[in-house]
Amino acid sequence: VLQIPRGTRDFASDEMQKRRFVEDKIRLTFKQFGYKEIQTPTFETLELFTAKSGETIIDELYSFKDKGGRDLALRPELTAPVIRFYVDKLQMESKPLKLFYFGNCFRYDRPQKGRYREFMQTGCELIGTDTPEATAELIALAYTILKNIGLKDLKLYIGNLSILSSIFKAFNISKEQQKNLTPLIDKSLFNDVVSCLKDFGFSEKDSQDFIEILQTSDVKKIIKFTEKDDQTKDEMMRLFQILELLKNIFEIKTCEIKLSIVRGLDYYKGVVFEIDAPRLGAEKQLCGGGAYELIPLFGGSKTPTSGFAIGFDRTILALEEEKYKFPEIKLDVYVIPINENLMIKSLEITQNLRKEGLSVDMDLLKRGISKSLKYASSINVEKIIIVGQKELDEDSVTFRDMKTGKQELVKINSLYEKIR
Amino acid sequence: VLQIPRGTRDFASDEMQKRRFVEDKIRLTFKQFGYKEIQTPTFETLELFTAKSGETIIDELYSFKDKGGRDLALRPELTAPVIRFYVDKLQMESKPLKLFYFGNCFRYDRPQKGRYREFMQTGCELIGTDTPEATAELIALAYTILKNIGLKDLKLYIGNLSILSSIFKAFNISKEQQKNLTPLIDKSLFNDVVSCLKDFGFSEKDSQDFIEILQTSDVKKIIKFTEKDDQTKDEMMRLFQILELLKNIFEIKTCEIKLSIVRGLDYYKGVVFEIDAPRLGAEKQLCGGGAYELIPLFGGSKTPTSGFAIGFDRTILALEEEKYKFPEIKLDVYVIPINENLMIKSLEITQNLRKEGLSVDMDLLKRGISKSLKYASSINVEKIIIVGQKELDEDSVTFRDMKTGKQELVKINSLYEKIR
Repeated sequence: VLQIPRGTRDFASDEMQKRRFVEDKIRLTFKQFGYKEIQTPTFETLELFTAKSGETIIDELYSFKDKGGRDLALRPELTAPVIRFYVDKLQMESKPLKLFYFGNCFRYDRPQKGRYREFMQTGCELIGTDTPEATAELIALAYTILKNIGLKDLKLYIGNLSILSSIFKAFNISKEQQKNLTPLIDKSLFNDVVSCLKDFGFSEKDSQDFIEILQTSDVKKIIKFTEKDDQTKDEMMRLFQILELLKNIFEIKTCEIKLSIVRGLDYYKGVVFEIDAPRLGAEKQLCGGGAYELIPLFGGSKTPTSGFAIGFDRTILALEEEKYKFPEIKLDVYVIPINENLMIKSLEITQNLRKEGLSVDMDLLKRGISKSLKYASSINVEKIIIVGQKELDEDSVTFRDMKTGKQELVKINSLYEKIR
Repeated sequence: VLQIPRGTRDFASDEMQKRRFVEDKIRLTFKQFGYKEIQTPTFETLELFTAKSGETIIDELYSFKDKGGRDLALRPELTAPVIRFYVDKLQMESKPLKLFYFGNCFRYDRPQKGRYREFMQTGCELIGTDTPEATAELIALAYTILKNIGLKDLKLYIGNLSILSSIFKAFNISKEQQKNLTPLIDKSLFNDVVSCLKDFGFSEKDSQDFIEILQTSDVKKIIKFTEKDDQTKDEMMRLFQILELLKNIFEIKTCEIKLSIVRGLDYYKGVVFEIDAPRLGAEKQLCGGGAYELIPLFGGSKTPTSGFAIGFDRTILALEEEKYKFPEIKLDVYVIPINENLMIKSLEITQNLRKEGLSVDMDLLKRGISKSLKYASSINVEKIIIVGQKELDEDSVTFRDMKTGKQELVKINSLYEKIR
């Protein structure tokens, strides 16, 4: 038997039903916020991703040469492709541009729970504005998408890379030292941060003060570190404004400052945010985003940009973890001919009900009434039409409600009314 | 500026709107016929495609080795992946299985009009039955999908590979000669078929008779060639039954026999069919399908299978060719604050209308009323809310209908009623 490639998945129909349901809800919320969907190719030039993330990303990519010798790669994320698209074709459009996407992404990674080599992301990019109102709206959009899907237990954290940078400065932590610390900070491994700082020669007190400020959501403590520097003070003001808007206008109560958000990527700047589903443990981060500067790197004219990406697979996991009741897929009706001679008449009844917009299936296997009823109950269909000659002679069929067990004779020309 | 890979496309929002609209319509029709959606990975083992189509397919594939040294390939079509999925995980499900899919496929091909290196296919597989009723329903489904999308000008052709085979036999055309002829027959290059037959030593009369039978839709002429052989006679009977069902039950009037359909692939057998949009010229084939035998090749237990695939991109082209009126994407409302101090109040009004389910955007750029009105008209939004202090003092805003130019004062708490 031929195998599925390692780390990838087949989705059976019950799983696909969930996925499409969630996808539709996400699309609706994006549109409500004035965003428009776009799509880019599944693979890009390798150069696009190395330009954005450096040569080391190659280790995590599915990259290959095409038959013309071009270096290509399956996309690991969608921000770089969307910005490439923008720089190439959309720079002249009216601003702000509000673009959203759904797309499969690929990462050559050790497969583990909640991490696959092919996975779906949805997200958006906001191009052309970075007012506090616009940024608050972007963050609220991410949160609203997850709320509208049906998730109840969510935590929103907001950080700011300029402020983080000024905290590093206040503690006299060098750029080189920062490089060692940020991966630990990003993963909230604060004990390791302390050991690392002590190795660098920092005092116990400074090390503890440093991780305290990174972990606090107390605004006053943060201000103490930012008030000395005018530019940082401005960023702090913006951060407060955004927080106020999120609380008052967008009614998000579970929003906290978290200065330890690093987002790992060099081109992020200013505001960053994350949304977690705490119940998912190590895989709890559903969404990450912030302001970034990528357009000039790809040859476009500088303009403010921000965006976020939501892990689609984890979002489904989070819904399952919350025991969310997904709607079931159900046929409206199942039609059973009681013998072979009634196949054609049954097909006609089936087809006429489909024309009315119903989803209808019939026994194509000629397997007879009792097996067909068993099949119908296995697929959970509630309404059954049984086609028999005696009833047909009176232009009627037997209509059976599987839930109540009630059975009655219904005229063929009033079937649709009956079922609807 | 970094380039998009050759032969691939970016889809802007107006194009994506069309594509999602068509996708939704297709999905609805599949469901009405009792089909359920599944999904498989974007890449598979290379072996899957060479097992199905032979080593020569490698020339047309995007194939590559992953970092573990496995030979993988981006899928060129979806039948092989779906059957792999079936053999691996779905063999125990109740029959018949009605599975449909949407998926991007990849072919390393010279890019030209209507042919791209990444393209979308939709289609289905019917596993577990091949009664004439089931086959007619499958063909009717393909046709109904294209009709329900809104296409008017469609031609359905039905052939049968067993009958074609018996015609070859009747003319004493050898297997080796068939291999040379079938690509020409498949492309309807009948003059070339005649030259080729003459080169093989066939008489002018035989050559002409041969292409006549391939091109006729006259049932009597076909019967003459099939009545000698019992098995072929049975296939002919089935073909007639299917044609009758398509005409009488599914009301498809534009259905013709076309014995020259070859479908190019060795694992097809029995019924084959194609649906064309004649206006598209060389790219006119929108759909191809038929009965095939692939499950045993992939290690599963033999069971009847049939299916079809629809070229999604060509379907969109065909709709454009017919000047189909796609629905436009429109915001329900655009909100304009007349000055910066009214940003927050405007954001609140915007957000409250979104909560009611409307799609609403607002001027985030603080660009003032006349520029904002120009922007609103550029994005074709019909309803505008202008937020001014004087009106706010009376809990009202200015509501403007861009179509009629009419402007009026509306209380904020009755805005939703007004817009809906």
